[in-house]
Amino acid sequence: MTTKSILIKAKETVKLLRGVSNEKINEALLKMADALVLNTEGILAENKKDIELAKDKISTVMIDRLTLTESRISAMAEGIREIAKLPSPLGKTLKETIRPNGLVIDKVSVPMGVIAIIYESRPNVTSDAAALALKSGNVCILRGGKEAYNSARAIVDALIEGLSLAGLPKSAVQLVSDTTRESANELMKAKGYIDLLIPRGGKGLISACVENATVPCLETGTGICHIYVDKDADLNKALAIIENAKTSRPSVCNAAEVCLVHKDIAKKFLPMLKAKLTDERRTNPVELRCDEEALKIIDASPLGKDGFDTEFLDYILALGIVGSIEDAVSHILEHSTQHSEAIITENEDAAGYFTMNTDSAAVYVNASTRFTDGGEFGLGCEMGISTQKMHARGPLGIEELTTYKYIIHGNGQIR
Amino acid sequence: MTTKSILIKAKETVKLLRGVSNEKINEALLKMADALVLNTEGILAENKKDIELAKDKISTVMIDRLTLTESRISAMAEGIREIAKLPSPLGKTLKETIRPNGLVIDKVSVPMGVIAIIYESRPNVTSDAAALALKSGNVCILRGGKEAYNSARAIVDALIEGLSLAGLPKSAVQLVSDTTRESANELMKAKGYIDLLIPRGGKGLISACVENATVPCLETGTGICHIYVDKDADLNKALAIIENAKTSRPSVCNAAEVCLVHKDIAKKFLPMLKAKLTDERRTNPVELRCDEEALKIIDASPLGKDGFDTEFLDYILALGIVGSIEDAVSHILEHSTQHSEAIITENEDAAGYFTMNTDSAAVYVNASTRFTDGGEFGLGCEMGISTQKMHARGPLGIEELTTYKYIIHGNGQIR
Repeated sequence: MTTKSILIKAKETVKLLRGVSNEKINEALLKMADALVLNTEGILAENKKDIELAKDKISTVMIDRLTLTESRISAMAEGIREIAKLPSPLGKTLKETIRPNGLVIDKVSVPMGVIAIIYESRPNVTSDAAALALKSGNVCILRGGKEAYNSARAIVDALIEGLSLAGLPKSAVQLVSDTTRESANELMKAKGYIDLLIPRGGKGLISACVENATVPCLETGTGICHIYVDKDADLNKALAIIENAKTSRPSVCNAAEVCLVHKDIAKKFLPMLKAKLTDERRTNPVELRCDEEALKIIDASPLGKDGFDTEFLDYILALGIVGSIEDAVSHILEHSTQHSEAIITENEDAAGYFTMNTDSAAVYVNASTRFTDGGEFGLGCEMGISTQKMHARGPLGIEELTTYKYIIHGNGQIR
Repeated sequence: MTTKSILIKAKETVKLLRGVSNEKINEALLKMADALVLNTEGILAENKKDIELAKDKISTVMIDRLTLTESRISAMAEGIREIAKLPSPLGKTLKETIRPNGLVIDKVSVPMGVIAIIYESRPNVTSDAAALALKSGNVCILRGGKEAYNSARAIVDALIEGLSLAGLPKSAVQLVSDTTRESANELMKAKGYIDLLIPRGGKGLISACVENATVPCLETGTGICHIYVDKDADLNKALAIIENAKTSRPSVCNAAEVCLVHKDIAKKFLPMLKAKLTDERRTNPVELRCDEEALKIIDASPLGKDGFDTEFLDYILALGIVGSIEDAVSHILEHSTQHSEAIITENEDAAGYFTMNTDSAAVYVNASTRFTDGGEFGLGCEMGISTQKMHARGPLGIEELTTYKYIIHGNGQIR
């Protein structure tokens, strides 16, 4: 099918999904999960094709992201079953107003309509996105990367099998078969067909969508996350949190990239930090890239150009000394991508100042930035992490994939 | 000041507004209202200049929109005082989650940051927009049309006087002095400086913003609003509602443009409608533009090309016959701009079907579409009517000018 016919089909399907009960949606989700497991063999065979085609072209990290196994497929199915367990985000009366003229105004949650997701090579995004969209009553159009096309096709075919067994329209989940740049552009410009476009992937993809989209587009992703160690910090908490935020999974957007340390504790803390992150780690020691003040205290790499503005996504941490909490906040306001920041402090005033004055989706006191995640927030899995302020911030769960409509009952009121 | 320096200044001012109390904001709003009234003479003099410059270039309707009087200025001041009375939309805990690991996750409402409004010639938009933005803790950048520049400048100067008397930064409200297309484009592309862009005005302005903006932009405005008269309608209610929706103020977006009538009652209802809207109206009779079926019943103009897809904004109503409520809904789904629709019926099932299956911001049962308005919804005045689904739908009040942040308290949690 051409991308245009997918768009037309999606719009038609919106009508068919309207009013489908949560029970029916859950039945479909469970059948979709089962179908994934039942089709494991076929999906793995298609995945193998993708890997064969890609292996000389992309890095081993990317190959790993692309690779499916039996257990990964069953984890995908489990993810869908978890989504089925969530309460429906639809049909909730968010607010009821009775006006002096007798009009009863109900603000009711409804699906967005058609959600398009442009993503890269992780095959699990295919099933997560389809399941989240369906749970929130939406039709979805998936446009994955070309490296993962065969895998995505096999996954979507299984999902459609499940949809169909539950009696829902197959066109509720559609995969764009054209993986060229043109199809992505066509989706970005599909005014009147797409109610929400969500790019998931690297900076290039996200910028392209934000800059070119004429349909409503939600910016997700890049995270230059900061951890500020206050003068009143519990230094052992600080060490554990920084190590976790930096090293537990450095390739993700909620990993910390910059650590700022209050000058009053820097002489004591920096050597501890270096020992913990670098000297004591047998595998994957962290490279500390220090500003001039920090370099006076520990022996490490210099910060380098753009050191405070780089999403390393690696075992590298930029380290700077600040004169005060105000300076820390100013630094963060200037360099942050408004994803996640943390303060380590035992001082409540400092915590209050920091949470009030930083301007990011998630602001932590004495906890790792790694918690900015749909699952960790209790939302089930997520469609990405929004780093803009319009519509939704932070993890995008099923509620964030809905909108609302006003339903107004009168008895002949005129104005 | 150049547009660029306004943008930089606005971003700096965000920090200064953070944490300012609702009391202080209300004090500033009241002083802004007083300053408008105190400066009436000066504002009228500047307005006169605009009218002189514009009088041969724009229509009399536009001249009327542009013209200020003492009472219009005092109405603007009253509007600001009403906004001051509203409860603050800021600092509300929208949701609190305590996770099994002990993390306490609070979702708290906060300002967007910098809101830019690009609008046309109505001077009251200047004060409404500034007051709504300030009440919700935002810095605003106003970019009005060139026809109203002198008026807007005088209004903004008065507002700034009020801000300043209350000790708030003057730069919380800034007017762009460049009224060429370039400054509008610069705002649309000001990534990193503007958190939300709201165009208010005609279709051309709104499309230009939606198509060119790389900053988050909220589509407002055009309303092809439908009224469907069901076979179970109370025909007298229908007549009163249609007359109100069409004629009480035809130039606004919530005015009705299309009436659909169920075939079973058409023979009885159409002559009644024609009498009410056309024959009995001494001033401003409505021109009915009918589809073929309707023309078999009453003598009227033919529908004409795009008759069902035109926002007339005039004393013109497109009129069509439908075979069923399902046909009415299909017609609306195809032709509506997703603003406001109404059904006139005494049948609850029909009302339920209609409200469930149409897909517009506001859906009415037995009431006029003219109620889609911030004031009528009880939100105070409004920043426009959103016709998209992302972020907000329908009237944009102060709550819709906020976002939220997650504030997470832990005691050393790592993942």
